[in-house]
Amino acid sequence: MTTIEAEGSGAETGTAPGTLTHEGGAVHGYHHQKDEHLKRLRRIEGQIRGLQRLVDEDVYCIDILTQVSASTKALQSFALQLLEEHLRHCVADAAVKGGTEIDAKVEEATKAIARLLRT
Amino acid sequence: MTTIEAEGSGAETGTAPGTLTHEGGAVHGYHHQKDEHLKRLRRIEGQIRGLQRLVDEDVYCIDILTQVSASTKALQSFALQLLEEHLRHCVADAAVKGGTEIDAKVEEATKAIARLLRT
Amino acid sequence: MTTIEAEGSGAETGTAPGTLTHEGGAVHGYHHQKDEHLKRLRRIEGQIRGLQRLVDEDVYCIDILTQVSASTKALQSFALQLLEEHLRHCVADAAVKGGTEIDAKVEEATKAIARLLRT
Amino acid sequence: MTTIEAEGSGAETGTAPGTLTHEGGAVHGYHHQKDEHLKRLRRIEGQIRGLQRLVDEDVYCIDILTQVSASTKALQSFALQLLEEHLRHCVADAAVKGGTEIDAKVEEATKAIARLLRT
Repeated sequence: MTTIEAEGSGAETGTAPGTLTHEGGAVHGYHHQKDEHLKRLRRIEGQIRGLQRLVDEDVYCIDILTQVSASTKALQSFALQLLEEHLRHCVADAAVKGGTEIDAKVEEATKAIARLLRT
Repeated sequence: MTTIEAEGSGAETGTAPGTLTHEGGAVHGYHHQKDEHLKRLRRIEGQIRGLQRLVDEDVYCIDILTQVSASTKALQSFALQLLEEHLRHCVADAAVKGGTEIDAKVEEATKAIARLLRT
Repeated sequence: MTTIEAEGSGAETGTAPGTLTHEGGAVHGYHHQKDEHLKRLRRIEGQIRGLQRLVDEDVYCIDILTQVSASTKALQSFALQLLEEHLRHCVADAAVKGGTEIDAKVEEATKAIARLLRT
Repeated sequence: MTTIEAEGSGAETGTAPGTLTHEGGAVHGYHHQKDEHLKRLRRIEGQIRGLQRLVDEDVYCIDILTQVSASTKALQSFALQLLEEHLRHCVADAAVKGGTEIDAKVEEATKAIARLLRT
């Protein structure tokens, strides 16, 4: 599991100074929960690897489907947390700033929610 | 990525003689597409690792949500293929056999579909 | 609510002798639960009318969304019951008959499930 | 269809002066699209009545399921429009006002989205 630990460690990447992104250096709403997000995603990655094991061991179809539902639920739950932080920070900031940016932000967020609903 | 290749190789596990499972040695419906399923799942695993990279690099929330929707869709699509094979083999076999097993099989499949719908 | 009772009564339509349909007179799987289905659908119709009342009375958006979720859940639940009966009768019958019809039936059912999942 | 027209007309109810609601007379975000919302909901009500007709006429299960999917999609689409207006007005207003109300509003909206996802 070397790759994954390296990816998740953030040692060489994520939190280094200078990597701040998007619109002049502001970090996104989810930045503060970054570690929690990475932990969640590694858990989901483990679930997907578990699914490969189940298929490989010829486990009963229905039991595999139950595990697929659990993984999908975990992904949806991750998406909801990300969305909540996005609304609380990016969307709320646009509202405070005034102007028309709030309209674009709300439309963008609604489209993202529509994509989640349609999957 | 050593771990994953090892897991997916099936060298020591899946297809060896004697590992046949469930109800007296019959393999499940999805057995014939096993390689395709493992390939799909490895691709989904790659998507989840890609999500970790996006979070780690502070990519914009909405772009991450788009990628989450793609992963969820891929999982649903995997579930649907598994379900189709289950209906074509396990459920149809129960119908041919006669008796009351078909009722149990149909109820079980419907519950699995309900779980997929509710995620 | 005169209209609805008239529609649901089936006096002039549904259960009259001779109206049996599809493939030489065989009725579908859900036929036996017809009354229950119609009752469920009338309840959902009532929920949709309730939604109109909420919008008309300027009820708080979130409370309306809660009611929309309840209606969607009721529709999904109706779909699942219909699907279960379809699997138990139409799909199982095709399996018993033998031949290639089972493949077409399973593919058709899977596509219907996919449509339910994607909404 | 007398009932529905009477319900939807708003003659005796919705837009009369003095019926404004919630927090000291402010109307909700969706108020401005009220007529459009009612039109959409009446169309969905018509779809549900169409479903009753299909069941009553013993139409093939799969064709009924297709129609259920269409109704669910229409409900989801209505929910998304309501949600967009809620974010643009109620949530954005809370952000502008400052204080902690924005947190409560965002949490509430996220929970509503979660309910939509889980149906």
